[in-house]
Amino acid sequence: MRMDVLTLFPRMFEGPLTESILGKAVEKELLQINVHNFRDFSDNKHQNVDDYPYGGGAGMLLMAQPIFDGIAEINAATPETKKRVILLDPAGKPFNQSVAEELSQEEHLVFICGHYEGYDERIRSLVTDEISLGDYVLTGGELGAMVMIDATVRLLPDVLGNQLSAQTDSHSTGLLEHPQYTRPADFRGMKVPEVLTNGNHKLIDEWQQKESLRRTLERRPDMLEKIELTEQQQKWLDEMK
Amino acid sequence: MRMDVLTLFPRMFEGPLTESILGKAVEKELLQINVHNFRDFSDNKHQNVDDYPYGGGAGMLLMAQPIFDGIAEINAATPETKKRVILLDPAGKPFNQSVAEELSQEEHLVFICGHYEGYDERIRSLVTDEISLGDYVLTGGELGAMVMIDATVRLLPDVLGNQLSAQTDSHSTGLLEHPQYTRPADFRGMKVPEVLTNGNHKLIDEWQQKESLRRTLERRPDMLEKIELTEQQQKWLDEMK
Repeated sequence: MRMDVLTLFPRMFEGPLTESILGKAVEKELLQINVHNFRDFSDNKHQNVDDYPYGGGAGMLLMAQPIFDGIAEINAATPETKKRVILLDPAGKPFNQSVAEELSQEEHLVFICGHYEGYDERIRSLVTDEISLGDYVLTGGELGAMVMIDATVRLLPDVLGNQLSAQTDSHSTGLLEHPQYTRPADFRGMKVPEVLTNGNHKLIDEWQQKESLRRTLERRPDMLEKIELTEQQQKWLDEMK
Repeated sequence: MRMDVLTLFPRMFEGPLTESILGKAVEKELLQINVHNFRDFSDNKHQNVDDYPYGGGAGMLLMAQPIFDGIAEINAATPETKKRVILLDPAGKPFNQSVAEELSQEEHLVFICGHYEGYDERIRSLVTDEISLGDYVLTGGELGAMVMIDATVRLLPDVLGNQLSAQTDSHSTGLLEHPQYTRPADFRGMKVPEVLTNGNHKLIDEWQQKESLRRTLERRPDMLEKIELTEQQQKWLDEMK
């Protein structure tokens, strides 16, 4: 997969793109990411990329020109790829796991990171998707782009060492994940549930399924309305209620 | 405000914490952030911090010991501060603007970044808050912590150059922000709405309020149910419908 990011703060991406899973995906060449600075596309000699808003108001807005020319340059460099051009915007469609799954099927994603004070409305005409990370305000689109990149890249084949891991996580199954424990069995007086240590896989599986349901019921009952439960799960759920 | 972050990938934070608004807040000493590596608290000679899950399952889990000892060290170094200890977890309470506002009132936040394959359940006993960034899965809690830090820090006094800016953004008012434009008035044939260029502030204000309502109605009607509209806003809204 190829990704291009347009931002005022390319240095913000250095750590996140070289460490952890993303760094490994780049190293294994499963992913190619190019981070571009808006300023490099500015057509004025001071490399200004923002200006005052028409009609007054607080702050400076990103101008249309550097973004239009940045996208044109990416298009010219990769005429053969089908692109999704994503604007990080608090007014966009909320990001969730199905959006991540959809994006993970694409060949080329382009992210435009907004400026914390806003941008010229005409930039929207360039994009295929406007996506919001959630109902909160960030100082820019950079962290939003990183989150979307991370959630998408981990779904690409061969990125996670253990493919099973991606499928059993919270939100992938539609339920929250059950509690998990590692050694020691007794940590400063806090013990691992006995069922997990006795090696009976049928009982362990049943405990995990029930705890996953229980946690979802307690914390996110809204998630239960969105999935189809098995007859057994429904029975357990009725008992818990 | 003081923040401590416990993570396996401290380098991920380098760019985000030195650039843009966060970097400026640190520079102006409005914010002190300490990023700690779990491994530095490991009590075994190989500095291992993860181990296999009891009962089987994919992946390795973060062990309790390094986190318990990391938190103990932070507590010992800052006995006088009141702390919120936040675990980034997909099963947590969804993060939103009111959580950011609440956190911005605290004196000391501690973030525990989970590992993408999970962690020992006993770690939860250390935390005051379990928070999820949204209904999607990330490879670790690092980006989630950065997002929460960014959303929180921008609300601290004197962090944003222009305080007004924070108050008029999308989600701060309960409505999405209206379209904004900057020069040129005609960009490659796309024109700025005339009302914004004629200097009549009453008309501009009315246009902005209406467009903010219109955008919210079109894109996020759910947001309209959560706020109290003025009589005038309600009238405009009825006309749009």
